[in-house]
Amino acid sequence: MNRSPHRIAALASSALAALVALAAPAVAQHAVPRAPAAVAPEVAALRDAALKDELAYELVEGLTTEIGQRLAATDAEARARDWAVKKLTALGFSNVRAEPFTMPLWLRGEEEAEIVAPFPQKLKLVALGHSAATPPKGITAELVVFPTYGDLVAAPAGSLRGKIAYVGNSMQPTQDGSGYGANGVARFNGPGVAASKGAAAIVIRSIGTDTHRLPHTGTTDFPEGVKPIPAAALSVPDATLIERMAQRGQPIRMHLLLTPRSPGPSQSGNVIAEVPGTDPRAGVVLVGGHLDSWDLATGAIDDASGVAITAAAAKRILDSGHRPRRTIRVVWFGAEEVGGLGGAAYAERHGKERHAIAAESDFGADRVWRFETMLPETATAVGDRLASALAPLGIVRGAGKAGDGTDIAATIATGVAGVDLNQSGLRYFDTHHTPDDTLERVDPEQLRQNVAAWTTMLAVVADAPEEIGPVPRS
Amino acid sequence: MNRSPHRIAALASSALAALVALAAPAVAQHAVPRAPAAVAPEVAALRDAALKDELAYELVEGLTTEIGQRLAATDAEARARDWAVKKLTALGFSNVRAEPFTMPLWLRGEEEAEIVAPFPQKLKLVALGHSAATPPKGITAELVVFPTYGDLVAAPAGSLRGKIAYVGNSMQPTQDGSGYGANGVARFNGPGVAASKGAAAIVIRSIGTDTHRLPHTGTTDFPEGVKPIPAAALSVPDATLIERMAQRGQPIRMHLLLTPRSPGPSQSGNVIAEVPGTDPRAGVVLVGGHLDSWDLATGAIDDASGVAITAAAAKRILDSGHRPRRTIRVVWFGAEEVGGLGGAAYAERHGKERHAIAAESDFGADRVWRFETMLPETATAVGDRLASALAPLGIVRGAGKAGDGTDIAATIATGVAGVDLNQSGLRYFDTHHTPDDTLERVDPEQLRQNVAAWTTMLAVVADAPEEIGPVPRS
Repeated sequence: MNRSPHRIAALASSALAALVALAAPAVAQHAVPRAPAAVAPEVAALRDAALKDELAYELVEGLTTEIGQRLAATDAEARARDWAVKKLTALGFSNVRAEPFTMPLWLRGEEEAEIVAPFPQKLKLVALGHSAATPPKGITAELVVFPTYGDLVAAPAGSLRGKIAYVGNSMQPTQDGSGYGANGVARFNGPGVAASKGAAAIVIRSIGTDTHRLPHTGTTDFPEGVKPIPAAALSVPDATLIERMAQRGQPIRMHLLLTPRSPGPSQSGNVIAEVPGTDPRAGVVLVGGHLDSWDLATGAIDDASGVAITAAAAKRILDSGHRPRRTIRVVWFGAEEVGGLGGAAYAERHGKERHAIAAESDFGADRVWRFETMLPETATAVGDRLASALAPLGIVRGAGKAGDGTDIAATIATGVAGVDLNQSGLRYFDTHHTPDDTLERVDPEQLRQNVAAWTTMLAVVADAPEEIGPVPRS
Repeated sequence: MNRSPHRIAALASSALAALVALAAPAVAQHAVPRAPAAVAPEVAALRDAALKDELAYELVEGLTTEIGQRLAATDAEARARDWAVKKLTALGFSNVRAEPFTMPLWLRGEEEAEIVAPFPQKLKLVALGHSAATPPKGITAELVVFPTYGDLVAAPAGSLRGKIAYVGNSMQPTQDGSGYGANGVARFNGPGVAASKGAAAIVIRSIGTDTHRLPHTGTTDFPEGVKPIPAAALSVPDATLIERMAQRGQPIRMHLLLTPRSPGPSQSGNVIAEVPGTDPRAGVVLVGGHLDSWDLATGAIDDASGVAITAAAAKRILDSGHRPRRTIRVVWFGAEEVGGLGGAAYAERHGKERHAIAAESDFGADRVWRFETMLPETATAVGDRLASALAPLGIVRGAGKAGDGTDIAATIATGVAGVDLNQSGLRYFDTHHTPDDTLERVDPEQLRQNVAAWTTMLAVVADAPEEIGPVPRS
């Protein structure tokens, strides 16, 4: 999962809505009418059978074992597309194809850092996506320690000239992932802010909730007119070490070497597979996740799990013996991590086709605890049927507006309705964007619950007799 | 903690004894007579006050923050000795000094590995201590996958010629640490076995109980006449990845680059501090841990905690206002990890002095759950008093023979009595010898319980009126 500013805003608004709901649950929790709805027996049967799913784990195991890391626009991502086309074809989906697009390639280089004074110690860090490089021999400079992003923002203009900025945080796990938006700003915007104040480089405490020596990468953005500087994330223990050193009061000097490079344009692509519907006018149900990963690990939870969950759920509809009203389109997006390029390419190519619903799985492999909808008035009953059908999986209905997800953002922005199946974020940021995002992070039992939730959602939504047209944006 | 073959044997014997005890607890659990003993009020007071100890944590924090890694015979280990002498002097101990010795230096170099076929993926590994180097550009060879050490041993002579051996394990946490002896043999002896069968190199699954991308280093030994080969440990997820690849049945080729070197002799040393006793003929109570660490992390649990716990306990006796009968000698040993050289140097220099008891803390920072003794017949009552005094800390009496610890092994071998305060090993091998051995691993509350246990032990033992002479070795 990458979080664009768009998603941060969505998160903040969702967190606010949740707060309002907590304050007055009976009144504010749901804006649209709620009616207890019966669960169709065929939906319940599909849901319960999915709790024994083996396909999703098999897909995650295959992708992580046979491909591994698949950074956007690299040969590895291309191998992943070939693997995906072959696998989805073998599973019996229709219209399976890759849709390539061109994008700028960014590649990690050497990454070394050490405190040279007052207490010489080597540090573990990783460059952030879009980081600039240091000179080939690195830089050595005074470290200015900002405990929080707010402290960095408050630093006087020019005060960081020639220095390396350090920015801390105190991120804690939250079930709805809202800690990421609140703390992630140090990664999203911190490097740009430090650069604008003259810093030679910036190192941040990883945006993560673990205490392992495994730094969290992720993209950063430099504003127009601000020259990018070297930007990296320290593992949490390395960050706390620096903060303890700073408490001793002596000046701290750091040596930093980062040699990422941007070799030019290269090819990425989306992979598409369909379960054909009976009524082309009813609109496509778009589901998926992203096929690319960061380059530090095999991307098991970010996002092999998401592509696996959505494909496994669609496969259950395909195999149900009942052809759904709406076409289910599974998209495994390319180049999400580096800026949501696959989602944008999809919207550019398919944005004029009628979409009924868009939904994305990109928050790991842990259980779905909540669902939210953004549906037109005509389809309110669809949300109520979802509530009844998902409840036996332990899923509650949330008050936020659905449509979250970098890959579907460009499609949702055109007014397409959305359903979010929110996974628990309590463990997600322990390993998000780290070398630790491997198959070991996937709990098969929770993964199955996800498949059951998505199967249920598809069964309800793809066959809904209601019109599901555009949703007016507020 | 390093485990020499001596310690493995001790562990195996201790595990066997525990098994016997479980089978017939009332009969076999304790070989010597047991008598409920009263707890002297001054011992209880010292014990309970130690549960509020701040010094041990302060020492661990200081050593990890101001020194960091302190690999044997490096400048960092020398800085640690200077730091230790200064700190122990400031704390008011007597006869504080460093006792240098010379030893061979081994230094880690570059470490890279990847599967080149059938599924190209980069791997995380670290060289084992005493590993040989590959050629500067590395080697590329077929990987032969042995699920267990036994499978490697069973391989025909010469069958590994020119190949890289992989050895797996399934280590699980155990409270008494016995899983280390059982699985660690793949590290202690595996490289020698692989070399003797003609292997070009060996990679093992880390001897560890975690699933993080942080490999566990540690020494290995090559037998006389066997030429050392490159030897490394893969992180557990990288090891399971290889095992999953192997299940696909295609030949696996690995590229491996390791460039450790042995630049020649260099200086290490022990640091000694004393609480002087009143009766020189009663013998010294020797306690301590090791000051050196592996080079991958700050060595918070291995073994800053051990030196801190034992010094903090001795400091409590020093400050109690009561001068003990026996001199308490705190030794922070050098060069434990690379073969127990500090312990050997100590025994060579001080072996002729009379020692009453030797005890070592080198199993992390988690709580003491058990104690064991090895006392002469004359001092049986000391063990019974320890049982009563330690029981309120939740410590049970074990049936094994005490004297465990690489640093005290050479002293114990001369017939000196021993007391072991066994810490829980349930978390220890998650981070042992990895980059994750940092301050975050230390639970201040459990660290205090350790200080209380050691303070209690010192209060009982240093003042015991009984003669504590040599123990006949069986």
